[in-house]
Amino acid sequence: MVEAPQTAEGWFSLHDFRSIDWDAWREAPESERQRAIEEGEAFLKHRELVADAEDGESALFSVLGHKADLLFLHFRPSLDDLSAIERRFEDTALAKFTERETSYVSVTEVSGYVSDDYFEEGADAVDEGLKRYIEGKLKPDIPDEEYVSFYPMSKRRGEEHNWYDLDFEERAELMAGHGEVGKEYAGKIKQVIASSVGFDDHEWGVTLFGADPTDIKDIVYEMRFDPASSRYGEFGDFYVGRRFPPRDLDAFLGG
Amino acid sequence: MVEAPQTAEGWFSLHDFRSIDWDAWREAPESERQRAIEEGEAFLKHRELVADAEDGESALFSVLGHKADLLFLHFRPSLDDLSAIERRFEDTALAKFTERETSYVSVTEVSGYVSDDYFEEGADAVDEGLKRYIEGKLKPDIPDEEYVSFYPMSKRRGEEHNWYDLDFEERAELMAGHGEVGKEYAGKIKQVIASSVGFDDHEWGVTLFGADPTDIKDIVYEMRFDPASSRYGEFGDFYVGRRFPPRDLDAFLGG
Amino acid sequence: MVEAPQTAEGWFSLHDFRSIDWDAWREAPESERQRAIEEGEAFLKHRELVADAEDGESALFSVLGHKADLLFLHFRPSLDDLSAIERRFEDTALAKFTERETSYVSVTEVSGYVSDDYFEEGADAVDEGLKRYIEGKLKPDIPDEEYVSFYPMSKRRGEEHNWYDLDFEERAELMAGHGEVGKEYAGKIKQVIASSVGFDDHEWGVTLFGADPTDIKDIVYEMRFDPASSRYGEFGDFYVGRRFPPRDLDAFLGG
Amino acid sequence: MVEAPQTAEGWFSLHDFRSIDWDAWREAPESERQRAIEEGEAFLKHRELVADAEDGESALFSVLGHKADLLFLHFRPSLDDLSAIERRFEDTALAKFTERETSYVSVTEVSGYVSDDYFEEGADAVDEGLKRYIEGKLKPDIPDEEYVSFYPMSKRRGEEHNWYDLDFEERAELMAGHGEVGKEYAGKIKQVIASSVGFDDHEWGVTLFGADPTDIKDIVYEMRFDPASSRYGEFGDFYVGRRFPPRDLDAFLGG
Amino acid sequence: MVEAPQTAEGWFSLHDFRSIDWDAWREAPESERQRAIEEGEAFLKHRELVADAEDGESALFSVLGHKADLLFLHFRPSLDDLSAIERRFEDTALAKFTERETSYVSVTEVSGYVSDDYFEEGADAVDEGLKRYIEGKLKPDIPDEEYVSFYPMSKRRGEEHNWYDLDFEERAELMAGHGEVGKEYAGKIKQVIASSVGFDDHEWGVTLFGADPTDIKDIVYEMRFDPASSRYGEFGDFYVGRRFPPRDLDAFLGG
Repeated sequence: MVEAPQTAEGWFSLHDFRSIDWDAWREAPESERQRAIEEGEAFLKHRELVADAEDGESALFSVLGHKADLLFLHFRPSLDDLSAIERRFEDTALAKFTERETSYVSVTEVSGYVSDDYFEEGADAVDEGLKRYIEGKLKPDIPDEEYVSFYPMSKRRGEEHNWYDLDFEERAELMAGHGEVGKEYAGKIKQVIASSVGFDDHEWGVTLFGADPTDIKDIVYEMRFDPASSRYGEFGDFYVGRRFPPRDLDAFLGG
Repeated sequence: MVEAPQTAEGWFSLHDFRSIDWDAWREAPESERQRAIEEGEAFLKHRELVADAEDGESALFSVLGHKADLLFLHFRPSLDDLSAIERRFEDTALAKFTERETSYVSVTEVSGYVSDDYFEEGADAVDEGLKRYIEGKLKPDIPDEEYVSFYPMSKRRGEEHNWYDLDFEERAELMAGHGEVGKEYAGKIKQVIASSVGFDDHEWGVTLFGADPTDIKDIVYEMRFDPASSRYGEFGDFYVGRRFPPRDLDAFLGG
Repeated sequence: MVEAPQTAEGWFSLHDFRSIDWDAWREAPESERQRAIEEGEAFLKHRELVADAEDGESALFSVLGHKADLLFLHFRPSLDDLSAIERRFEDTALAKFTERETSYVSVTEVSGYVSDDYFEEGADAVDEGLKRYIEGKLKPDIPDEEYVSFYPMSKRRGEEHNWYDLDFEERAELMAGHGEVGKEYAGKIKQVIASSVGFDDHEWGVTLFGADPTDIKDIVYEMRFDPASSRYGEFGDFYVGRRFPPRDLDAFLGG
Repeated sequence: MVEAPQTAEGWFSLHDFRSIDWDAWREAPESERQRAIEEGEAFLKHRELVADAEDGESALFSVLGHKADLLFLHFRPSLDDLSAIERRFEDTALAKFTERETSYVSVTEVSGYVSDDYFEEGADAVDEGLKRYIEGKLKPDIPDEEYVSFYPMSKRRGEEHNWYDLDFEERAELMAGHGEVGKEYAGKIKQVIASSVGFDDHEWGVTLFGADPTDIKDIVYEMRFDPASSRYGEFGDFYVGRRFPPRDLDAFLGG
Repeated sequence: MVEAPQTAEGWFSLHDFRSIDWDAWREAPESERQRAIEEGEAFLKHRELVADAEDGESALFSVLGHKADLLFLHFRPSLDDLSAIERRFEDTALAKFTERETSYVSVTEVSGYVSDDYFEEGADAVDEGLKRYIEGKLKPDIPDEEYVSFYPMSKRRGEEHNWYDLDFEERAELMAGHGEVGKEYAGKIKQVIASSVGFDDHEWGVTLFGADPTDIKDIVYEMRFDPASSRYGEFGDFYVGRRFPPRDLDAFLGG
């Protein structure tokens, strides 16, 4: 058996995709819509303003196309926090006007492909830059007002090309090449990788943030030519949207 | 890692497929149907008559079969424009009688397989004909009264035949052969290619327009024998329909 | 690139599979059921009695199992005719008691594998028998009171067995062998082949008619051993049913 | 082209899987529930007590899990009989409380792998034992009070392992080995094989009956190691349940 | 034909995944919610407190994401027990507020890969430790307050890598290696394996319990590099949740 990489985990993550029941919304009395907006806004603001930067992050996104209208993205220290958030939302008057279209449960992860020292000798053995980089991966900020792309993925276990049969060095080299492509987009694209092994249907969820949606397309396209993706990547559905502040929920719903 | 092609992007595109809730329509009072038609028509006319040819294009199509009844096709300079259109439609009285069946989010794209000079030396380095050709691909006109076929597609990443493992020259040659088939249909079929990498479930959305639906069948069939398709094309669902002017919405709905 | 076969097209075809909303039917007042039956019958009779044999064919079938209760099969000279039929049905009182389960859009087709001369030298270059055969394939009669089987299919583009990489002669030979099996069932099974390339999700729709459903099973099973199917056929879902005259709609619905 | 086996057909079969709408059931007035039970029971008893053993068999099963609550299994001499049963059930007050979850249409079949003589020289050429065996396969009894497992299956047409490319002798040998496993379970498991080629989405429907559900698991598991299954079997969804007499419908529904 | 492993079976198992109809819940009068909570709690407590440890186990879990809100997990000596539990739940006032999202039917299993002696010479031929281990696998305790991960899986029958074509020794060796990974997580992860061959859509259902969800991720990830999984494992959907006592149903529902 080949060697599995070591991993460090950070926040658990819930991607909660919802559509608006526009028919119900259109026909609801003004007072009910008002209450839905207020409770929705309050719920979201409260989630975004967690007591402490260590307590997680939350953000709201509009989503394009029929697959969903909204994405509620939450990072929290435990699965229980996420479960509580899910149930608390159902208490708001906004929940009634939404349908759960899909969701994704995962935990942010850094793996041994990134740095041997970090895993072998501990966080303090690595330089400050790498330490901050890893910390940023495990407890990510969600950038303001930016576009988002989310997709789940797995590594192929094909009859010929099987990621899980490669030895550690081969995988580390492929991941390094993959990282090179990512570095070209430094400053343009922020990437959050979270493992869903044992939690959800693919092996990882990938969330990309960028000020220009074309950069999102470009990084995914360019990476597709990289052998780590071309031979070993298997992708689920893709979702694209844009962050907006809870105070604009009113405008979003055309209330 | 093999070389990814350079790309230029034009308008973002939303293919919004909707079915009519015929039961609700049949039972709605005449006044409500009238209002739905008027608001739907006004919404669509407004979208078709964008202030400036630079601001995009919109069109309405009837669709055959159970998968949808209508296709609303929008090209716009930004994803935000498309998002606003989606939400604005939900404010019309017509929206209530429609269900979102599926949709597709993409951005028109020209890639380096078409012309080295355009990408290496800039748009002004190529002759007027090619410049206009590329401009037409990035900011496409939607022909009047013509049939439409839409389908999403990806390039195969099979264990044996893997598009993303081919080197640039091989891919360019295959794309050139593919283009040859397209040229036989010049004047008969207009083709719009838009990338959905990072945005939607396949890699591209293809939209074909033609005055004769048999030409649509013929070009897709002939291309299927071309190695760029036969070995490397993977296709999603196909939709066929015909453009009609918003003023005929009344007749379409049998109002 | 290998050579694509030439094709001739006939009538466009809509297979419209619907289920009955039995709960609504059971609870509808007698007068409403009566009107639904009358309008449904009138709609169907009118469609079956097209002005001229050149104008197309329509027929009604009961379908077994949960996938649908009824199949409305229409052949018409244009996609617009089919689109009009779809919308006209929605005006009947019967439509309210039906749900669209699935559908298939295609165009009857004869291809160059059948006869070089027909395509190279024109319809008049072939003998009367072949001319009538081809005409019957393009503008098919729908037999009375017979069983029907419908399924969509495509030719495989596998990594090893790829129909679209074979040269024309090999494909023609495989199709000829396939035709031999068909001939054994002459007089027992009538076969209508219609292309859905560019129109619907598979490449062809196959409709078989026969007085004995066992013959339907036998021809499909026997053809499955023929290399054109065994190596290159990919099949979608199968539907089986039986034609009945619109005047029996009353009895079918247990009215 | 390799040789297709000869086949003999018996009864047509409908597996009709339904779920109970428990919410509607819970809220229905006692009188309506009573009528539903009575009409359901009468319908089922009438179907089980067909006039003559030659006219078919019917049985009712409870089904485990969310996929269905009830299985109505009918064997009849013609597809028309099955179609009439489907429609007749919709006339009962029980139908309103059920949803059609899935179904399967097939015809019992014995094929030339079993006995050359039966097919070459006729039913009378084989000994009484074999004749009765074949008759039992074509017109099967449904055992009382036993567990049932149903699943559809097809033979693989893979790029490497293609059942339909094997010659007759190889297939016959594989089927004989498969039969050997079946014989170990004689007296414990009763197996009904029905072809759905041309009728439904897989090629066969398999129905197993046994007094001990562990025997069902064991025979399917053991056969999975047999090359006829391991290399050439492709399986659909599995359903498990238990037969009960229509008079217990009352208890089942907790009425 | 290669040799199938011998197996011993224990309790039958039903994984019953349900979502809450939050809209109905939000709008129900307080008295109805109260009754739903009371009846749900009573139902669950009664199921957890089975008369005797030999009679089975039941437990309730919250589930993350849109796929379900609750998992009702039941182990019982017979399929009939499980069927009765399913129907009894539908009599409670809580059932009305739930939808069955999915379920899984299986039977706990120990196979000959674990111990030859146990199967060849009987339970008494093996030492107490192994006997208790096997007993624990067949009649598992469900740990309190712990996280759960459930997923169905099958062994691959690929054209190249086919588990069911390997001889017994090879399979036993692969399973032993697989077991080694499991042993590293002794005390942290409890694993229940149940066969669904002949009962449900995959071949086994795997249920993992652990106090730390990261351990769940780690064991599944590490096993993925083990050839028994990397070459031969095929996985269905994954569900993650946490056990809670029935008395907390009130708090869970926010009543």
